[in-house]
Amino acid sequence: MTRLLSTLIAIFAFALFAGTAAAASGTLPLVQKQVFELPSFVTVAGEKIPDVRLGYETYGKLNERGDNAIFIAHFYSGTSHAAGKYKDSDPLPGYWDAIIGPGKAIDTDKYFVVSADTFANLSATDPNVITTGPSSIDPRTGKHYGMRFPVVSLRDSVRAHKALLDQLGIKRLVAVVGASGGAIQSMEWAALYPQFVQRVVHVIGPGFEVHPWTIALVDTWTTPIRMDPAWNNGDYYGGAGPRVGVAKSLKILTLTARHWRWSRDTFGYKHSARLPNPDKSISGQFQIVDAFDILGDMRSGAVDANNMIYMSRAASLYQLSDAEIDGIKAKILFVPAESDLIFPPEFSEQAAARFTRTGGRAEVFTLKGGGGHLDGLFEILQAADKIRQFIESP
Amino acid sequence: MTRLLSTLIAIFAFALFAGTAAAASGTLPLVQKQVFELPSFVTVAGEKIPDVRLGYETYGKLNERGDNAIFIAHFYSGTSHAAGKYKDSDPLPGYWDAIIGPGKAIDTDKYFVVSADTFANLSATDPNVITTGPSSIDPRTGKHYGMRFPVVSLRDSVRAHKALLDQLGIKRLVAVVGASGGAIQSMEWAALYPQFVQRVVHVIGPGFEVHPWTIALVDTWTTPIRMDPAWNNGDYYGGAGPRVGVAKSLKILTLTARHWRWSRDTFGYKHSARLPNPDKSISGQFQIVDAFDILGDMRSGAVDANNMIYMSRAASLYQLSDAEIDGIKAKILFVPAESDLIFPPEFSEQAAARFTRTGGRAEVFTLKGGGGHLDGLFEILQAADKIRQFIESP
Repeated sequence: MTRLLSTLIAIFAFALFAGTAAAASGTLPLVQKQVFELPSFVTVAGEKIPDVRLGYETYGKLNERGDNAIFIAHFYSGTSHAAGKYKDSDPLPGYWDAIIGPGKAIDTDKYFVVSADTFANLSATDPNVITTGPSSIDPRTGKHYGMRFPVVSLRDSVRAHKALLDQLGIKRLVAVVGASGGAIQSMEWAALYPQFVQRVVHVIGPGFEVHPWTIALVDTWTTPIRMDPAWNNGDYYGGAGPRVGVAKSLKILTLTARHWRWSRDTFGYKHSARLPNPDKSISGQFQIVDAFDILGDMRSGAVDANNMIYMSRAASLYQLSDAEIDGIKAKILFVPAESDLIFPPEFSEQAAARFTRTGGRAEVFTLKGGGGHLDGLFEILQAADKIRQFIESP
Repeated sequence: MTRLLSTLIAIFAFALFAGTAAAASGTLPLVQKQVFELPSFVTVAGEKIPDVRLGYETYGKLNERGDNAIFIAHFYSGTSHAAGKYKDSDPLPGYWDAIIGPGKAIDTDKYFVVSADTFANLSATDPNVITTGPSSIDPRTGKHYGMRFPVVSLRDSVRAHKALLDQLGIKRLVAVVGASGGAIQSMEWAALYPQFVQRVVHVIGPGFEVHPWTIALVDTWTTPIRMDPAWNNGDYYGGAGPRVGVAKSLKILTLTARHWRWSRDTFGYKHSARLPNPDKSISGQFQIVDAFDILGDMRSGAVDANNMIYMSRAASLYQLSDAEIDGIKAKILFVPAESDLIFPPEFSEQAAARFTRTGGRAEVFTLKGGGGHLDGLFEILQAADKIRQFIESP
């Protein structure tokens, strides 16, 4: 069982990894989750959402001119807990602690770093996540929105986060940095607020649009939720909810975020200890399958099924127009991962070429490794010097 | 709707494609499905299956010495209908008609070609498929096996098919040719019967073992079936069965058998006509998602849910030992597809290198294109000359 646990930790080891790296530099003071409130928000699609509440964290200090800020946009299943710990006894710091902190690539001695929770954040029941989405109560009815929540795009989250930065007194951003869904948001920032955003660090991202292939792939992630009778078309609040569906959805998501090279090294052909002999019994299982099942089950308690469906849609709606791309003033650092099967490196290379062709400034730095999409989290230290350099360059 | 249909046909156009190509050469006489029966079969795992019935087809004629035969092993969701038509009015011939027939790469004027249905064939309700699996009636109880059927590997299918070839008077095989799951069988043939098999054509296959990654991927394919309450742990015979689960399972399978390059060309960002405005309505959908849904639904009627689970396990159990690989006498032609995401070309290249290193004879011919795994069916004509040459070489 210890062996299984260590294997499971290997799947989501990025925070541990980050923790090790953090020791080399300074450590952030304890972090506090804060709340940003908007009495009313109108989505890109024209729907009004009352009483928006979104969580955020800050690291470092804003200077007087309000021009030393960096925004960290979080990934699909991530949160605004990008770095630091809430209390000393936290087992792990935020997911990108390896590159955010005093003296690190994103240096909190120099920069005021902000990260915020998106609309329809998956981890709605995590006490450190504050989000507005299907899991929220509609103040007009007193009931959970469920599938009656309006469609929200990642652009909507960016527009709400801009209001937060305005309230914080930020005049312009040195950079927006994000991985995956966060990379999408980083580009939306540059397209929506070209005068406000000086640099984009687009880590394991799709470029200027999410690929039709990815739209279909993302749809398969939530298929098990929709198949779960306990989902009940989104009306499950107050009950146990579609926990099995969420677990299986997380399993598919995590698998597609990995790569075959990684899976051989981590699991090989070992049989599951609790479900032995897949060669003799149809209920037997290989360890790789069982480990993903256990992991999905462990994570499922913190994930809201409807929010996962809405976040999937949000990620699928990302597509900048040519005019929007041409309007971007920021320079862009693309950081793909060589074994990424969700947003393969060719997407970044094509986007960089397209941006350069029309006069934009773009660079590509590719993460090495066989860990798949998640190398954008686990292997980010490879790009630390490059990111530091890029942020400090004119 | 015509547009949608043409898009759907594009997804599974291999048979059409094959039909076009067939016009260049001769056409096979009408094909008849035949039945091979074994009163009793003992699996590799030691379980006894009574009254085995498996369908097969033959094209061309066996010579007197019984040494001009080629066996075609079918893929995961395929059948023994590899070439020709059952009646003139059939809309499409068998899936590899482009390379099997008079004067074609696998020339039925010279060779006696045999293909047979595996155990637990997916298309159990297709009147032209004869299989023994969970969907069969256990003669000892008079009831459908369901999940009480013993685990069968692809090796088991090969062992049963060897008994068929013995009965047909075949003394040795010029070649075994198969795509994907059929490629696995082709290698099992060479490992089990080294004196019997002279050549292996391993198209879009995994090499000498199925990768742990693929084991996990294949498991996700049948997740929707297991999530469907109508699956009822495999006891659904006599009722409607888990049709939605099967449809969603086929959807995931088909998507992973494709590639991002293909999806952009075929679908782009168009919205579904019947479920419009995914940007405004959570029930709206992109055409790529809707088309895969419709396709899964269309195919679901012919697929048995339990058989799909058993076939997934069969594919996951493929792993030759070093001794088995070293014992192979056949020379091997690996035909990977460059955009294959299930068995990427590096698997074939590594297997060829491993085989050559220990004195085996291996060649690699890579299919070009962005169609993914399914290019092994759609684009097989690219390899036609190479396959012909390989089969006729000493």
